[in-house]
Amino acid sequence: MVRRLWDKGEALDEAVQQFTIGNDPQLDRALIRWDCVGSAAHAQMLCSIGLLNKKECQAILDGLREAWELGVKEEFDIPFELEDGHTAIESFLVEKIGEAGKRVHAGRSRNDQIITAMRLYLRHQTLSLIEELSAWNDALSKRYDELKDVDMPGYTHLQRAMPSSFGMWLEAFDESVLDLIREGFSILDALDSNPLGAAAGFGTSLGLDRKLTAKLLGFSRVQRNPIDVQNSRGRYELRFLRWTEAVATIVEKLAWDMQLYVTEEFGFISLPNELTTGSSIMPQKRNPDVLELLRGRAARVRGAASELAWVTAKMPSNYHRDFQYTKEPVMKAVGNVFESVRLMAHAVSTFTINPDALKEAMSADLYATYEAYRLVKDGKPFRDAYRETSKQVADGTLDVDALSADFAEIKTSIDIAMSEARAEQKALDAQAKDLRGKLDAVEAGVFLLKA
Amino acid sequence: MVRRLWDKGEALDEAVQQFTIGNDPQLDRALIRWDCVGSAAHAQMLCSIGLLNKKECQAILDGLREAWELGVKEEFDIPFELEDGHTAIESFLVEKIGEAGKRVHAGRSRNDQIITAMRLYLRHQTLSLIEELSAWNDALSKRYDELKDVDMPGYTHLQRAMPSSFGMWLEAFDESVLDLIREGFSILDALDSNPLGAAAGFGTSLGLDRKLTAKLLGFSRVQRNPIDVQNSRGRYELRFLRWTEAVATIVEKLAWDMQLYVTEEFGFISLPNELTTGSSIMPQKRNPDVLELLRGRAARVRGAASELAWVTAKMPSNYHRDFQYTKEPVMKAVGNVFESVRLMAHAVSTFTINPDALKEAMSADLYATYEAYRLVKDGKPFRDAYRETSKQVADGTLDVDALSADFAEIKTSIDIAMSEARAEQKALDAQAKDLRGKLDAVEAGVFLLKA
Amino acid sequence: MVRRLWDKGEALDEAVQQFTIGNDPQLDRALIRWDCVGSAAHAQMLCSIGLLNKKECQAILDGLREAWELGVKEEFDIPFELEDGHTAIESFLVEKIGEAGKRVHAGRSRNDQIITAMRLYLRHQTLSLIEELSAWNDALSKRYDELKDVDMPGYTHLQRAMPSSFGMWLEAFDESVLDLIREGFSILDALDSNPLGAAAGFGTSLGLDRKLTAKLLGFSRVQRNPIDVQNSRGRYELRFLRWTEAVATIVEKLAWDMQLYVTEEFGFISLPNELTTGSSIMPQKRNPDVLELLRGRAARVRGAASELAWVTAKMPSNYHRDFQYTKEPVMKAVGNVFESVRLMAHAVSTFTINPDALKEAMSADLYATYEAYRLVKDGKPFRDAYRETSKQVADGTLDVDALSADFAEIKTSIDIAMSEARAEQKALDAQAKDLRGKLDAVEAGVFLLKA
Amino acid sequence: MVRRLWDKGEALDEAVQQFTIGNDPQLDRALIRWDCVGSAAHAQMLCSIGLLNKKECQAILDGLREAWELGVKEEFDIPFELEDGHTAIESFLVEKIGEAGKRVHAGRSRNDQIITAMRLYLRHQTLSLIEELSAWNDALSKRYDELKDVDMPGYTHLQRAMPSSFGMWLEAFDESVLDLIREGFSILDALDSNPLGAAAGFGTSLGLDRKLTAKLLGFSRVQRNPIDVQNSRGRYELRFLRWTEAVATIVEKLAWDMQLYVTEEFGFISLPNELTTGSSIMPQKRNPDVLELLRGRAARVRGAASELAWVTAKMPSNYHRDFQYTKEPVMKAVGNVFESVRLMAHAVSTFTINPDALKEAMSADLYATYEAYRLVKDGKPFRDAYRETSKQVADGTLDVDALSADFAEIKTSIDIAMSEARAEQKALDAQAKDLRGKLDAVEAGVFLLKA
Repeated sequence: MVRRLWDKGEALDEAVQQFTIGNDPQLDRALIRWDCVGSAAHAQMLCSIGLLNKKECQAILDGLREAWELGVKEEFDIPFELEDGHTAIESFLVEKIGEAGKRVHAGRSRNDQIITAMRLYLRHQTLSLIEELSAWNDALSKRYDELKDVDMPGYTHLQRAMPSSFGMWLEAFDESVLDLIREGFSILDALDSNPLGAAAGFGTSLGLDRKLTAKLLGFSRVQRNPIDVQNSRGRYELRFLRWTEAVATIVEKLAWDMQLYVTEEFGFISLPNELTTGSSIMPQKRNPDVLELLRGRAARVRGAASELAWVTAKMPSNYHRDFQYTKEPVMKAVGNVFESVRLMAHAVSTFTINPDALKEAMSADLYATYEAYRLVKDGKPFRDAYRETSKQVADGTLDVDALSADFAEIKTSIDIAMSEARAEQKALDAQAKDLRGKLDAVEAGVFLLKA
Repeated sequence: MVRRLWDKGEALDEAVQQFTIGNDPQLDRALIRWDCVGSAAHAQMLCSIGLLNKKECQAILDGLREAWELGVKEEFDIPFELEDGHTAIESFLVEKIGEAGKRVHAGRSRNDQIITAMRLYLRHQTLSLIEELSAWNDALSKRYDELKDVDMPGYTHLQRAMPSSFGMWLEAFDESVLDLIREGFSILDALDSNPLGAAAGFGTSLGLDRKLTAKLLGFSRVQRNPIDVQNSRGRYELRFLRWTEAVATIVEKLAWDMQLYVTEEFGFISLPNELTTGSSIMPQKRNPDVLELLRGRAARVRGAASELAWVTAKMPSNYHRDFQYTKEPVMKAVGNVFESVRLMAHAVSTFTINPDALKEAMSADLYATYEAYRLVKDGKPFRDAYRETSKQVADGTLDVDALSADFAEIKTSIDIAMSEARAEQKALDAQAKDLRGKLDAVEAGVFLLKA
Repeated sequence: MVRRLWDKGEALDEAVQQFTIGNDPQLDRALIRWDCVGSAAHAQMLCSIGLLNKKECQAILDGLREAWELGVKEEFDIPFELEDGHTAIESFLVEKIGEAGKRVHAGRSRNDQIITAMRLYLRHQTLSLIEELSAWNDALSKRYDELKDVDMPGYTHLQRAMPSSFGMWLEAFDESVLDLIREGFSILDALDSNPLGAAAGFGTSLGLDRKLTAKLLGFSRVQRNPIDVQNSRGRYELRFLRWTEAVATIVEKLAWDMQLYVTEEFGFISLPNELTTGSSIMPQKRNPDVLELLRGRAARVRGAASELAWVTAKMPSNYHRDFQYTKEPVMKAVGNVFESVRLMAHAVSTFTINPDALKEAMSADLYATYEAYRLVKDGKPFRDAYRETSKQVADGTLDVDALSADFAEIKTSIDIAMSEARAEQKALDAQAKDLRGKLDAVEAGVFLLKA
Repeated sequence: MVRRLWDKGEALDEAVQQFTIGNDPQLDRALIRWDCVGSAAHAQMLCSIGLLNKKECQAILDGLREAWELGVKEEFDIPFELEDGHTAIESFLVEKIGEAGKRVHAGRSRNDQIITAMRLYLRHQTLSLIEELSAWNDALSKRYDELKDVDMPGYTHLQRAMPSSFGMWLEAFDESVLDLIREGFSILDALDSNPLGAAAGFGTSLGLDRKLTAKLLGFSRVQRNPIDVQNSRGRYELRFLRWTEAVATIVEKLAWDMQLYVTEEFGFISLPNELTTGSSIMPQKRNPDVLELLRGRAARVRGAASELAWVTAKMPSNYHRDFQYTKEPVMKAVGNVFESVRLMAHAVSTFTINPDALKEAMSADLYATYEAYRLVKDGKPFRDAYRETSKQVADGTLDVDALSADFAEIKTSIDIAMSEARAEQKALDAQAKDLRGKLDAVEAGVFLLKA
């Protein structure tokens, strides 16, 4: 087993070690997979410039693939005394193939090593979240077809305002999710740049071939400046987390809507039993815990983003050990946001509607604006139409049936929106599928020794 | 003068009015310009579907152009009793052209009106900030040519680590700014969608032609779903603010670097007098206040983003009056970030270097890693090379002159990076210029009555 | 007129001046009052140790009192070119009494000057907010007497849970407000320490009598260490802002409750016209804007606290110019929280209840837990009682009338709570009144030359 | 083994269970101890009002004590399928003593049960952190005695400003820590209120004796209103976290100072080997990782506080399931802040000073202000003295030796401050010791059946 990388023989106080290592061994389990991929590319490149011979390189690649397989299953063990995943992988290699295992570290610092692993991790998670969002949209779209003609009141200020429908409401979230997916692709573009080779932030004098590692890792660009590579530690993480915050905010908004709709007072929808729990003290109750926890999860994601901002902001250039703490909030956000999107898709798919309550809620005054618009079409200035309609509402003389056709027209426009949204979704899905194929090929290919 | 839009004759307690109106009249001054543009497009569209006749429309467009001219100069006055910019513009129109001035409100709510004005404002500010960032990059690039060969220590953990140079450092920020510009374009893409026509969030029954207003306003897409339009209130604002946060963070990092470099202890650079101030109590001092305030401005921008998140998050769908408070943080961030980028470009352009201090700081041990790499090239495993070099450093036998060539190679790679970055910058500048031309044409054209 | 304090003749670029001065002249208007009080104490002390003669001191005190009078009315003008309140006051003094006006600056830096002014301001605002909270509690207490026996459902998970009442609900907020008042007093205790005399953070060699200025300013303690004085810049501000955040959070919670209760769906209460507004597009609506803005104000206060934390955290010891930006968030929070408490007290005082809706909402199942408790009293384990009661609810056989007496007992306990809370409130009011008297005496006395 | 409390036989989707339970079983391990204490008090009270007989009560108390013993060692196991600590304790009781184990739940909801456990936990942690802070102050105080006469430059704007000393610097942090301890006691006062008996937030009809449980648990007051009890969920947690934030901010400030002082450029102090680490790539380096991680820990604590604010704010009254997520940030802050204070005390105790570097840094111009003050004492207005001294500095004619006496006077004042601070510390230590004794007695006594 190798010693800690920086060990020159001094004894170290155990409490200090506990403090400095912290929960790194747990957190790094999720990065082993990506650290192996990055290391394999680095080894191939070292071989191509003559700093590893083919035999060494082959041995290293074989060892890394073995570690990678464990990493994919998150079963690669990182003993506390090895401190972190990088050291654990090196130790693993040395055990498998002897001293040659150390040679992969040439021209690399733990700094660009972790930045590379995190970049690969973020790229993977971004694409995965895009896929998850797409599945949520499928659920919204399916429910749309079932419920699009069910009316419900539309609210402003939480007061009944105008006619709305389940179709309009579900399609709205479909559009929001599309927006999130588009933002996800812009993040993939930002992440598409190879940090490997920056070493400790000032380059190396080994003549590393950074374009080669870029190609092996599936990056379109090289992140050219080594100081910029260091300074980007946390920068892309934060951008990713701001996106997960945006995702969680849309989940939260839909969860809040549903929480209102399941109250006895609104009573528009009901949840299946598996999304509610009983009370330990009140026998009559079923509580929409899952919806509340979805709101709570958004709070957690925001807390994670806030933590990351605090860790990385207000700092001079280059590496500082504080940046060790960039990993925890990223993984916390990932853990929370995927589960949230999945559960929300389930909630969307399984709620049922309460037609009587909805019918009763569609009170005549909701149609007042339509009447005002009719008068406008007949040439009245809106302000006057508004005053006249106001009176009809007060008198109870508003003729709702006559106004239903106006609502039907609006619903038709939503139907058109839905079909346009579906077409966009389809194109984005194809783009995601392409990228997934490319990334799979990167992972499959990086452990195969290039001729 | 028109009455407040919602006034039906009730007396209103003055304190409540003070509370509800707040600083809207001041904030809305910055939106008058965009509210007029949005209103002009709406009027043209109403005319095209027969809800305004040409004469009315011409009169409205003329009146709006007059208000717009004042708005561009931020000289359009909003009296407190008119509450907000929307009412003030309507009042202005009625004074100019009589009752016809009210007709522009047909098929529009203050909700989609403000969302439209804010969308146009954000698009304008995003492009403007891209232009400002580009100017900053020009300053970095110019300084690079002057100082690229001046060496300075590179730090990790704030400890001297490896050779660096002003060239490497300045080019790093050039790359970061390029990154920010790219993110800016992704925001422009998100903003490129027409919210006008969503009314209060549930559409209208007037058969509005939303594709026409999209075209008139220079939007590529229609934001299709009216609930989604409402729900996007604050969403794009927050995305824009997260970007200004990213911008401010890069400014802050460079300011922090420079603050360290101007201390007596580092002493690498000096600032021109206009960027420092004296002390009221210590006669001998010159303080780098501007750099500290640049760091402080980043804090303000983060505060603004945090405020906006608090206003908009954790809310059910649709409009709530809380959203009135989305404007202040946006304008606060805008105010702070533009000035910051401008001042930082000035600081970059005017600092001077202190060659003696820099020379002294380039101590031999900085080159230790290069020596280790030499040994690696000669076939030593890095770990062993590391131990051997470690000994040379301790013995003072490290041969720096022999290692300088290695540093020269790294500098060459930075030179290549700089020229690639310049090419990218040029392409992005061209893209920004195109869009600026298009947006100028939108503003010039929207007040001209379409045949 | 004096020149800017640090001016040694250099020309200054106007943009830099705009950047560095910012909105200080506006913000400092609120501090003139306290700067004059602090300066007067300093002058008296300088006189007592022989650094001012009595005549000079008298002249300075007279001049300061004049400025103070303007400051109390927030009418003291700070021209932009004088940069800040400190310079403006000195300029004012020099105009009134000639060169002697400059002598008050001996042994003082702008650093301890602003910290002193801010300490006095915070002490004043803390006490004022305590007084405001007490007035809110009076409103809650009065409404309690009127409405205590009106039943309403109690909710958990926003689902109807158990019987509650307006009495229980109003008394709950009374208790929360008491808690806030107690926290306010703990802040007053923290603020009760004199920073004046720390100069730029390293003391002075003038032998200043800091105990004397403490006494003159009504502080019980001297803040002994000058570095600690500097390092406390922002520390007490943040503690105060965290308190305003807590205040705003209680206002927000009550506003949220009331927003639910005024929906058509709940319909428990109605608001007077002056707390609602109409819609510009929907003739039939009245919207509870004030309640929504109260929630929005809490967001603003949190944003302000977040901004302040960003300005002050992550900094080495001693003064940095960033701290100029500590003032704005403090004043923003003050502006928002006072108005919020006042408007909420008004809302509490003026809502009306809708007895029919409340009666209907008090459904039988709310009493299920009481029935379970009855069975427990008869010896059943709670889990079994729970299952039996559950069945009664399902069968509709729950006997509500028999259970009403149980609810009456709970109400009695709330009545006792209210009277205990009132007694506590009375004691705290007396404490606040004492302190107010003392602070008034400080302000009245500090301008009178001590014998 | 008992079933989940709310189980009525429905099948539950496993993913939902995973989502709703989350990491509760881990988090609750830290609360088992306090949940047992709270439950014991509840059992005693039920016995006193006849809802448990003595034999049952004795059995319950014995069982709880057994669980408590495991809880103190954090060895009480919570299987995932039991969801949380409450259920696990009940299950444990039932296994030990049969069905009687369920009777302790009478008159209690999981809501007031967790609030009580958390209140006890917070009280314990607050006192423990006070004790930890006091130990830190002992370290500061000891170092003060050693180093008080070692001079170092005092900085403003990170520029050398005036003479300072290790004594002044260390005493400053001693004062800050005293301030933190005082704030800790104000939090203990806020926490000193018994929530037990509020049940689900609307009281019970069982006639519980809440004064008795208050007494048994060592609370001075009963938190009277059950809605207020629910609404205080998260409120005291946040107040505690804001305090840990303040603690972490002081640690961070001192860590930042030390990081500057250990740079080659400042070079004032050195760290012992156990507080530094080497580099994996640069053989010559020793890095102050512990100091950087201390700064990073402050970021984590702020992130935790932000998360908690997001979970709890913007919510209507009463219990929502979101509040389950209040536990994680509390425990995260606790975990980080205790370790930080302990490590910082170690760093304070073990750094060494570099006299040569310090001597060199004490440049003559630092004394300029003293000279200006001398001129002021001789009757010059400060502004004129400032100008004259300014000239002396420029000419290099400042007589430092003559001014040293002035510095000595300031140091004497710091010595007096230190002795006053020690006296205050002693009084606060005594207060902490008293409370610790009382809380120990509560824990020892609560499991003993009252006659």
